[in-house]
Amino acid sequence: MSRPVALTLNAGSSSLKFGVFDIAGAPAELATGLIEKIGGQPRLRASLGPDADPVRRELDPEEARDHASALETALALLRAHFPEARAEAVGHRVVHGGPKYAEPVLVTPRMLDELRQLSPFAPLHQPHNISGIEAAVSAFPDALQVACFDTAFHRRHPKVNDVFALPREYYDKGVRRYGFHGLSYDYVAGELRRVAPLLHAGRVVIAHLGNGASMCGLLGGRSVASTMGFTALDGLPMGTRCGQIDPGVIFYMVQQEGKSIDEVRELLYTRSGLLGLSGLSNDMRALEAAGTPEADEAIDYFVFRIRRELGGLAAALGGIDALVFCGGIGENSRRIRERVCAGLDWIGIEIDRARNAANERRISTDLSRTHVLIVPTNEEIVIARAAKRFLEEASPAAG
Amino acid sequence: MSRPVALTLNAGSSSLKFGVFDIAGAPAELATGLIEKIGGQPRLRASLGPDADPVRRELDPEEARDHASALETALALLRAHFPEARAEAVGHRVVHGGPKYAEPVLVTPRMLDELRQLSPFAPLHQPHNISGIEAAVSAFPDALQVACFDTAFHRRHPKVNDVFALPREYYDKGVRRYGFHGLSYDYVAGELRRVAPLLHAGRVVIAHLGNGASMCGLLGGRSVASTMGFTALDGLPMGTRCGQIDPGVIFYMVQQEGKSIDEVRELLYTRSGLLGLSGLSNDMRALEAAGTPEADEAIDYFVFRIRRELGGLAAALGGIDALVFCGGIGENSRRIRERVCAGLDWIGIEIDRARNAANERRISTDLSRTHVLIVPTNEEIVIARAAKRFLEEASPAAG
Repeated sequence: MSRPVALTLNAGSSSLKFGVFDIAGAPAELATGLIEKIGGQPRLRASLGPDADPVRRELDPEEARDHASALETALALLRAHFPEARAEAVGHRVVHGGPKYAEPVLVTPRMLDELRQLSPFAPLHQPHNISGIEAAVSAFPDALQVACFDTAFHRRHPKVNDVFALPREYYDKGVRRYGFHGLSYDYVAGELRRVAPLLHAGRVVIAHLGNGASMCGLLGGRSVASTMGFTALDGLPMGTRCGQIDPGVIFYMVQQEGKSIDEVRELLYTRSGLLGLSGLSNDMRALEAAGTPEADEAIDYFVFRIRRELGGLAAALGGIDALVFCGGIGENSRRIRERVCAGLDWIGIEIDRARNAANERRISTDLSRTHVLIVPTNEEIVIARAAKRFLEEASPAAG
Repeated sequence: MSRPVALTLNAGSSSLKFGVFDIAGAPAELATGLIEKIGGQPRLRASLGPDADPVRRELDPEEARDHASALETALALLRAHFPEARAEAVGHRVVHGGPKYAEPVLVTPRMLDELRQLSPFAPLHQPHNISGIEAAVSAFPDALQVACFDTAFHRRHPKVNDVFALPREYYDKGVRRYGFHGLSYDYVAGELRRVAPLLHAGRVVIAHLGNGASMCGLLGGRSVASTMGFTALDGLPMGTRCGQIDPGVIFYMVQQEGKSIDEVRELLYTRSGLLGLSGLSNDMRALEAAGTPEADEAIDYFVFRIRRELGGLAAALGGIDALVFCGGIGENSRRIRERVCAGLDWIGIEIDRARNAANERRISTDLSRTHVLIVPTNEEIVIARAAKRFLEEASPAAG
């Protein structure tokens, strides 16, 4: 007997994340994995369920010379472990949905053309997302293919949070404050609705703090503002990305230092952020362990910018009822959460050190005017749920 | 009998502002004036005291072909009106004091060399400021020449408000969050100390809203954060400048639209901001009068970004005790002040509509938790006071 599953795929510039979800009922994770360094010396990591040992191995370069062969390698592993699985749908994380896509959408040749036209907005990511979709369409010609956009959750921002102060034609061309990490915010907002419906109805800031980092302001569960704008470079400092920066710095680098625009872009994307400030590492765990003055400065800056952006988002919401941490750093770094919150008593935030140290769901004190929560995020299940919804719509009898 | 005066000069790219201050006692304004369109079809405006009619006239191009000849023209006017005046000091507004200058400083050849080395940080302004100083040194070889920096008031920012998340060598090179409008903030902070010493000791945000616009957060009268950073382009949207923008927009304009970096800079400095958004004007009065949807959008965006930056500055201060408006828009636009404050009840701001409509000094209600004030700014007198202080130090007996 075959078992209906949805596959989730997230194709980065040199990586492929994949997941398998049982969709007989509400989607439930069966396996997740990651192939890194595609086109180089590739590596595979996977977790194939509670009863299987985790997989970690170096791959032959030929097993992942491009996204298509990496997908074949992942599928060979999955078919061996889940011989009864039948992929009825494949859900894709796509970084950019442009001005149009405010919801997940079924992949069609026409829609893929539209996604290609958005590549100028995200030249480092969008082409790889599209390659991933094409590889999956070849591998599963009969499955529903569904695209889920990192921008979609933010597409109903009020105009003041969507526009830059540029000549008007730029807004019409699509130069807008899109915001990203939408699948993560969608998941966390859903969890909040489930566990704390009254908070969900109020003024909430979610801080997605990982190697990429952004914050989102929500009113009644809907995004009204984000710290990220047109690209994933703006807002908070990140592992290697600069976050908020004066545009004059770019003019200085080009006109005074003689750098090319490609060199400046490379510098701001890959050598700035925590890595640039610390001169040491893009990894918050390494910085916390290092204890050098430079590492401490990088952490100070990260913490401070979170607080400053939180003030700005609170202004966009007209105040704040809850702050939610998620992402690798947000879920795991007791110290970062404690330091962020220590500067936020002015908006009624007081955390309980013991709860915070224990990574409890609610880390604010009982009397804190503003609630502070930790909600581990799960972008893959948001994709799997979207895939399942499209399957049900395609064959209502099966729902 | 001769009358000791200080001259103040503010040389822009094609303009020269000048002022004359009686410095027998505390500096008192005698005259102010402006020559615009230097090197083109120049115009002169001046106000020569309460008993004289205002001067407004077109100049012959030869009367202001460069900053030196414009200064001569201004001096001819002033000498005719104030024949007894003896310029003992000339005070200069200089946009950039770099990492070093946190106070006004006496002009010396060595110090001028240092200012020249800062030109890459403000290529559009610094060379003109230096020309103005050189012209004044020629015209008044015996007067004390004092430079007052727009950056100086902010030079004691904590590191988290001074640094960008770039490789560390950029901080050492001087790529920092300088902040500008420092002479205006200095004046307003001084007025606040005089009229409300307890507020001055607390957490204050000053909004300098003019054709250029920025905001400053002060603790105990000292700047700890500004919305402007490395250049005068960052932060709030302005008449023609974009304010905060995702650096990715610049990459898009260069790499996808094929613009040169000079074209992008020109676009962001001179065709963006209120002008770009409205497609109509860089002048807030014109936008308020226009009432078109585009003009309203530009105003909405301006108001919203002030609120969002205010939230960020409040976070930098750990809350807010007072908000102070100054600058052409801040001092004169009842509507902008009312709209900014209408969204700030979450931080305890409530304004009295009648007081606001009457441009009273205090426009908050008696019970507003956070005070809201209007303090008309005066950058020239800050320069004149600095000049007087240096004169007193140079000849203590005359003090």
